[in-house]
Amino acid sequence: MPLDVYDKIMMLAKRRGFIYPSFEIYGGVAGFYDYGPLGSQLKENIENLWRSFYLLKDNCIEISTPTVTTFEVLKASGHVEEFTDLTVDCKKCKRSYKVEEIIADDISVEQAVKENKVKCPTCGTILKNAHPVNLMFSTKIGIGEDRKAFLRPETAQGIFTDFHLLYRYAREKLPFGVVQIGRGYRNEVSPRQGMIRLREFSMAEAEVFFDPKDKKHPNFNSVKNKELYLYDNEKEMKLSLEEAVKKQVVNNQALAYYMYLTQEFLMTAGIDPKKFRFRKHASDELAHYATECWDAECYSERFGWIECVGIADRSAFDLRAHIDSSGKDMYALRKFDKPKIIELKKIVPKMDVLGPLFKDKAGKIKTLLENMDLKETKKITITLDDENIEIPENCFEIVQIKEKLTGEKFVPHVIEPSYGIDRILYCVLEHNYNETKKKGEEYRVLSLNPSVAPIKVGVFPLINDERLVKIAIEIDQNLRNASISTYYDDAGTIGRRYARMDEIGTPFCITVDHDTLKDKTVTIRDRDTMKQVRKKIDEVIKYINEKNILMF
Amino acid sequence: MPLDVYDKIMMLAKRRGFIYPSFEIYGGVAGFYDYGPLGSQLKENIENLWRSFYLLKDNCIEISTPTVTTFEVLKASGHVEEFTDLTVDCKKCKRSYKVEEIIADDISVEQAVKENKVKCPTCGTILKNAHPVNLMFSTKIGIGEDRKAFLRPETAQGIFTDFHLLYRYAREKLPFGVVQIGRGYRNEVSPRQGMIRLREFSMAEAEVFFDPKDKKHPNFNSVKNKELYLYDNEKEMKLSLEEAVKKQVVNNQALAYYMYLTQEFLMTAGIDPKKFRFRKHASDELAHYATECWDAECYSERFGWIECVGIADRSAFDLRAHIDSSGKDMYALRKFDKPKIIELKKIVPKMDVLGPLFKDKAGKIKTLLENMDLKETKKITITLDDENIEIPENCFEIVQIKEKLTGEKFVPHVIEPSYGIDRILYCVLEHNYNETKKKGEEYRVLSLNPSVAPIKVGVFPLINDERLVKIAIEIDQNLRNASISTYYDDAGTIGRRYARMDEIGTPFCITVDHDTLKDKTVTIRDRDTMKQVRKKIDEVIKYINEKNILMF
Repeated sequence: MPLDVYDKIMMLAKRRGFIYPSFEIYGGVAGFYDYGPLGSQLKENIENLWRSFYLLKDNCIEISTPTVTTFEVLKASGHVEEFTDLTVDCKKCKRSYKVEEIIADDISVEQAVKENKVKCPTCGTILKNAHPVNLMFSTKIGIGEDRKAFLRPETAQGIFTDFHLLYRYAREKLPFGVVQIGRGYRNEVSPRQGMIRLREFSMAEAEVFFDPKDKKHPNFNSVKNKELYLYDNEKEMKLSLEEAVKKQVVNNQALAYYMYLTQEFLMTAGIDPKKFRFRKHASDELAHYATECWDAECYSERFGWIECVGIADRSAFDLRAHIDSSGKDMYALRKFDKPKIIELKKIVPKMDVLGPLFKDKAGKIKTLLENMDLKETKKITITLDDENIEIPENCFEIVQIKEKLTGEKFVPHVIEPSYGIDRILYCVLEHNYNETKKKGEEYRVLSLNPSVAPIKVGVFPLINDERLVKIAIEIDQNLRNASISTYYDDAGTIGRRYARMDEIGTPFCITVDHDTLKDKTVTIRDRDTMKQVRKKIDEVIKYINEKNILMF
Repeated sequence: MPLDVYDKIMMLAKRRGFIYPSFEIYGGVAGFYDYGPLGSQLKENIENLWRSFYLLKDNCIEISTPTVTTFEVLKASGHVEEFTDLTVDCKKCKRSYKVEEIIADDISVEQAVKENKVKCPTCGTILKNAHPVNLMFSTKIGIGEDRKAFLRPETAQGIFTDFHLLYRYAREKLPFGVVQIGRGYRNEVSPRQGMIRLREFSMAEAEVFFDPKDKKHPNFNSVKNKELYLYDNEKEMKLSLEEAVKKQVVNNQALAYYMYLTQEFLMTAGIDPKKFRFRKHASDELAHYATECWDAECYSERFGWIECVGIADRSAFDLRAHIDSSGKDMYALRKFDKPKIIELKKIVPKMDVLGPLFKDKAGKIKTLLENMDLKETKKITITLDDENIEIPENCFEIVQIKEKLTGEKFVPHVIEPSYGIDRILYCVLEHNYNETKKKGEEYRVLSLNPSVAPIKVGVFPLINDERLVKIAIEIDQNLRNASISTYYDDAGTIGRRYARMDEIGTPFCITVDHDTLKDKTVTIRDRDTMKQVRKKIDEVIKYINEKNILMF
């Protein structure tokens, strides 16, 4: 079987120091990869490009929370119940499989299970007893006390559980966005797609909090005429943001805006526009927390359309869940233009009755009661830790009061663009991989965008003459001091050195030659045009910086 | 009890968005903290400053490997056996304690256990049966197959297990250094020191590989006269690097060089030189892998001297362990000036005998045999997976051959500077926290070094005049486009706005006033001198960039 582009890229990636299979000296484990020196730099550049979109263009703030996450948080968020894959076990082969991955393409999971069409891919046995398996890595904090915990399946929960603090940081104004970049974990049953299905991966997520009555984005107008590449599971279409929202193809401005930001980011990172689209989730495909979701998909020769980003409207799902489970006040305030004097019925909890009756739950119940909407309720029931608790009438008073209100409390909605950094990185490699022949040998060029290329400049002395070497090393050091990553190389022919740089995507190569000694100029060769220009040494940094500018 | 400086800093940190206790809405868990918007930026700045020392000044390369680590790796590295704390359980209180943390200051752990002086800090019961408890978080990869794994206790093992690939990347030249920045985990029994003893923390580690016969550093000469602040557990002293090595206070140049780099980094990050020292580990204090170790310690009012960095000579420990356990060739080659023709005895393994006898271990045994030093050995014994295996004589031949050798194989030694980022961050906050009174109110200034300050510039319109606001917003946006982090503020008096910025360590504040409308100048106020200068708007970015330069 000839190698496909995935094989070729992964071989190049290992040979040149982009990506190594983890724990390989002990046989390796599916779903784990190491980033070598070039891969790690490429990944960091992609993450920093992402930051420039979300922190600089979109004014979000960034936080960083632990990967180990307590049971309570993920119970409340629904992940303990819902973050599962339907799985079958083959007793003969002693292996487990995700049903979705081993059934035929033309049949749904539901159908396959119902019609007994789930076969072991190894021995062919018909597998029954499909059951959901939770995909979180589990662990325990401390000893003795034995506190159950998981590795986070998403960075988002770290943001939601701090909402009240972040809302204060944002000076209580909506919308505001909070991002987190970091590891996420998914203990896949039996991952068989290399870099595309990792058990430990890097995510970049933004949780942008909106007033549900006002899902507009302040920057929407400036980009409303730009076009989105959409696919509604039937046909592809290009629609302007404005049209997409008007025709209700996309539900609201905020969603459309973050789709656009995503499209721009991916193109700048080096995704091929011809291999890109947004696909809308069908309703039976939505995650448990989402009301609408668009996937940014990139096309791969081996894997087909890959989900690289999910842009979901999570509505009030998560904050509501944490308010209900923790009893903490995590509401936002919609300020009135001027304070209102209103008459209202209010629940005044009686702690002297609640306390002895509900003990450690009394505090939570008090908060929930105080924040309850009291329109037509007579019997008062509260949902706490999955339990419906009826609150006896002697636990509270309902009073009719006049209150001066500066605003009304509500639970913000969340628009979440969630990026899989490793998948994006792989697709950037695949979309920029070019192969030709040169003098009978295979010649590979990675045409990486300068802003993400791990090495920006190769620096060479033409020959190993002491005087040339000295100048080349000096140029190399000056570039590095100006935060431009370089690779110094004095081994082999110039052609060989260009080839090494082309293969790892280095956009520029500087050569110090004998003319340099005379006129203090060097050649700068462009990877894509292969043309050379001569520049004064003093102008090199400026020249590179200008070429290197982010294209947005 | 009055608040101490730790309490005050943690209160400020929470109120202003530096550090939040994790999972607080569910009661929190000791040993976990979230970095809020300012803390996350401060942490990133410290990490990037660290990168500028290790990647730029010291030419190391960076990699990034998974936090989930397989059992085999950590078994080989010794962590499964050795990464433990001596622990006691109180059956009455149903809690466990680390012996070290609950005994009197004037007694050693050994003595306390022997003399029954370990008391429960809660109920006072004498606790017996002290036993080592492993401190790694454990988990499992996949289902069914049930592969045991841990969260990494250090990032270092990810580097060691890739050594052969990284050695190739470095074109097989020593010394070379590899760094990793990322999360590390330590499932502390009962952490009681807030930010100082975390269960999930951020580390920055460098593993620098040396030829054991040549532990010199190429940059040593340029810094040999600089002074190190040393403490040998008896007295403090200042010694130049050269003297320290000469007098064998520090074992070798490489160790001394990385101690110096550490000292420079910490001072640049904002550690107070008067609250800093290197302390040498006593021999009974050394980690299982170290032959010599110096801690860079920073003084804290509450915690005393805190280990913030450990600089260890790990010798060949880890690579040797992974070679022995995996059987992979992870040697380096010491090239001869010219090839040597030598006569030598060589073991030629007989795979037809080895194979059937040792089955899946045969491959590993073959590699170990081929790389064995055959000087005086008669009986051949190999250590594999902790087992001593005697190799029967019919499994190999010993042949006398002539061989042309280009060099000799050896296991490199490792010098490891390992930084605890969270502790450094906390100490930077403590060493730069200042408190005074202004108009009867408490006034707090964080005198953070501009290179690490989360916000570099506050931007204010003097009053809420539309014209001033427009200019201020424009300046703010231009600074952000130049990658200078800003905070725009138009609420409250100018004094109040300065106070807000002083409290979070913002070094500069720009105010747009009525003169700006006339002559396009603004005031720039310096946090530390409180002096103001007037600058043209066009010159602001240049002015800030110059002030902001890293001081090394």
